[in-house]
Amino acid sequence: MEQFFYKQPVPIDFGYGKLRRLPEIMKQMNVNRGLLISAPSMVRAGIAQEVVEQSEGRIIGIFSDIQPNPTVANTDACAALLRDNACEFAIALGGGSVMDCAKAACFVAGTPYSASVFLSGERQIDKPGIPLIAVPTTSGTASEVTTASVLTDTDRDVKALLASDYLYPVYALVDPELTMSCPAQVTAASGLDVLAHSLEAFYGKKHQPLTDLAAERAASLVFRYLLIAYQEPDNKEARSKMSEASVTAGLAFNLTQTAAAHACSYPLTQDYGIPHGEACAFTLPSFWRINSTEGPEAERLQAFSKRLGFNDAFALADRIDQMKRVMQLRSTLEEAGIHADELDQLVSKSFAPNMNNNPVKITEERLKAIYHDLSADAKHSELQS
Amino acid sequence: MEQFFYKQPVPIDFGYGKLRRLPEIMKQMNVNRGLLISAPSMVRAGIAQEVVEQSEGRIIGIFSDIQPNPTVANTDACAALLRDNACEFAIALGGGSVMDCAKAACFVAGTPYSASVFLSGERQIDKPGIPLIAVPTTSGTASEVTTASVLTDTDRDVKALLASDYLYPVYALVDPELTMSCPAQVTAASGLDVLAHSLEAFYGKKHQPLTDLAAERAASLVFRYLLIAYQEPDNKEARSKMSEASVTAGLAFNLTQTAAAHACSYPLTQDYGIPHGEACAFTLPSFWRINSTEGPEAERLQAFSKRLGFNDAFALADRIDQMKRVMQLRSTLEEAGIHADELDQLVSKSFAPNMNNNPVKITEERLKAIYHDLSADAKHSELQS
Ligand SMILES: NC(=O)c1ccc[n+]([C@@H]2O[C@H](COP(=O)([O-])OP(=O)(O)OC[C@H]3O[C@@H](n4cnc5c(N)ncnc54)[C@H](O)[C@@H]3O)[C@@H](O)[C@H]2O)c1
Ligand SMILES: NC(=O)c1ccc[n+]([C@@H]2O[C@H](COP(=O)([O-])OP(=O)(O)OC[C@H]3O[C@@H](n4cnc5c(N)ncnc54)[C@H](O)[C@@H]3O)[C@@H](O)[C@H]2O)c1
Ligand SMILES: [Zn+2]
Ligand SMILES: [Zn+2]
Repeated sequence: MEQFFYKQPVPIDFGYGKLRRLPEIMKQMNVNRGLLISAPSMVRAGIAQEVVEQSEGRIIGIFSDIQPNPTVANTDACAALLRDNACEFAIALGGGSVMDCAKAACFVAGTPYSASVFLSGERQIDKPGIPLIAVPTTSGTASEVTTASVLTDTDRDVKALLASDYLYPVYALVDPELTMSCPAQVTAASGLDVLAHSLEAFYGKKHQPLTDLAAERAASLVFRYLLIAYQEPDNKEARSKMSEASVTAGLAFNLTQTAAAHACSYPLTQDYGIPHGEACAFTLPSFWRINSTEGPEAERLQAFSKRLGFNDAFALADRIDQMKRVMQLRSTLEEAGIHADELDQLVSKSFAPNMNNNPVKITEERLKAIYHDLSADAKHSELQS
Repeated sequence: MEQFFYKQPVPIDFGYGKLRRLPEIMKQMNVNRGLLISAPSMVRAGIAQEVVEQSEGRIIGIFSDIQPNPTVANTDACAALLRDNACEFAIALGGGSVMDCAKAACFVAGTPYSASVFLSGERQIDKPGIPLIAVPTTSGTASEVTTASVLTDTDRDVKALLASDYLYPVYALVDPELTMSCPAQVTAASGLDVLAHSLEAFYGKKHQPLTDLAAERAASLVFRYLLIAYQEPDNKEARSKMSEASVTAGLAFNLTQTAAAHACSYPLTQDYGIPHGEACAFTLPSFWRINSTEGPEAERLQAFSKRLGFNDAFALADRIDQMKRVMQLRSTLEEAGIHADELDQLVSKSFAPNMNNNPVKITEERLKAIYHDLSADAKHSELQS
């Protein structure tokens, strides 16, 4: 018999131009002293200042010293600012990097510690933090509706996940207009991140009926609209559908967690500088092929692929490969700058806990074979055979 | 461009046999002095007492003086008991009637008023009530995840809706095993209530992408499993799928509200004693036919019907009619005991606010024509033509 636990405490306020509702939302929440946490790109574009100006004095400052794949140092600095200014709320306006940093900082601010002790597991996230309104500017991470914050501890050279119900933002304001300015490569990578969230939620061991539903819907939107958003950055409908896809995938993977492709992405980002979504997409087609051929989910993945209009699961995987080529993303070891003699180390660093969510057990040997098949030579002979 | 607001604050803990988790849930919530609000049928079956016994002293009493279509008097009595015993939580174990009464009572207990002043709109529901764990025993209302409580004020002869974010239960424990004892007519009526929630959420003016998804999934489960649950009351899979359908439909109509078929149901229940779900199903096929022929949603309803495996929208409506016949529910004015000379009054009592959610505007004249078509004569000539 079916068993599941479903939860989605974050209200989602979605729509083109909805950023203009922010002053009203702050008023309704009756919050009066907040920090805007954002990205340098939003400051340069003048959007951050505009948000402050329209806040009627409610926002007392901007913190934007956050790098892509935010660090513990970024988080601690942000937390200190929140603490020193006795902020009673915060707004995160940015991509996953800004939102993840803000989510962690809002909790850390209420403690005397560095984010690193929570990332290492030395201490637990055990109480609510400062309430956060999350406003994504990419269509990708869905961090606005999840328990997760992914931080990098440069001292310990590790990218890891914080996850807690106390990290949920209190409000997700999703305005597709904000994503219009995303550079093509950000649209591409974050869009494939949405696809990875959808497919991994669907095949992940913890999938359940309501997450299956959201995952399938999100994936079908990505296949239909991502290339349009990439090729026509001003296409409002495509941007809007990609934002919808992103937050819908969030409803799914927030509960199922991600799986093998995400586990593999962490060292690809950390050691080879590949952006998160592109790093997930690097192995996603391989795991889709494996999971649709063996293991307990093979039939479900075939049926899913057909419902989405593909001939079979391999055709779906091929389509991802094709999208990667069109969007000029890396598909081979050579393109990714991974040398054959580095494979053992890459493989051994790929076993984050979410690797266990994959329906087919992945061993180090197996993963090495998967990577070997991603060499230009192997790909070439595959195309010829 | 798409705009929507999505919210579902109630965590859903779903699974066959999950009632046994209740002691653990109370412990986790750290609540120590609660009332069990239930139905006479649950007391007779010994289930209510068992829940008390396993609560390790946390539940201090049972209130079960609640009639189907609960009254203001039921609610006020329940609220008094909660208040007098200084309860810090409550559990509702029953169908929609029990859950609706409990939701309202948990709020009313914190006020010096009768539920009637909130039902009349004289006063607003403006603060949280006593936290309620909702445990449905029918597959129907989804009251465990909604803002709504439907109460009858016998003094003013009105059945009306209370709705507020403060009426959300804090936890929905959905155990399909509890529905196994539902008499066939309760299975039938509450099962069609699920279908009405799904279809009305789908065509309702406030539909949005995420509710569409839930609505379609729930409807497809009802078409597949309701007759099985009706004909084989011990079929665990069918019961489980109907429970899943019910709570999934709840995710949809909680945000969209219901529409014309529900508006029509209130006087059918109040004046003709027709159970809620059966009353909704009385006009549901008529509105599905209308909304799939005219108005802004016609095409969407046709496509929906086809995705569910029907030739067209009329075939879907015919299938509802057929299910009603199989389950021996009333389909004609004569069977419902509605006399021709009562039609004007019935029609004029049918315009609750949710009538406006119907995509095609329904006038009194139109509704009278709809009812006329439900006379045995009209149905007979329709079948012959
Ligand atoms: N919390 C989660 O559940 C979760 C899920 C997936 C990924 N992540 C993490 O999120 C991060 C990736 O987030 P991302 O993909 O959103 O990218 P990002 O936030 O790192 O942004 C990428 C770049 O695009 C710029 N940018 C963002 N929005 C822009 C806009 N509208 N216009 C112009 N420039 C813009 C940023 O300034 C940055 O330079 C990674 O650290 C990843 O690990 C978290
Ligand atoms: N709050 C909402 O969103 C919402 C939505 C739809 C309907 N409603 C309301 O809910 C009520 C209808 O609820 P319902 O359809 O669940 O029926 P119900 O709660 O009125 O129960 C119907 C009968 O079945 C019995 N029963 C219930 N579960 C049983 C079980 N497991 N075994 C044996 N007997 C059982 C009850 O004791 C009762 O006699 C109406 O008042 C309706 O207006 C509320
Ligand atoms: Zn991701
Ligand atoms: Zn109903």
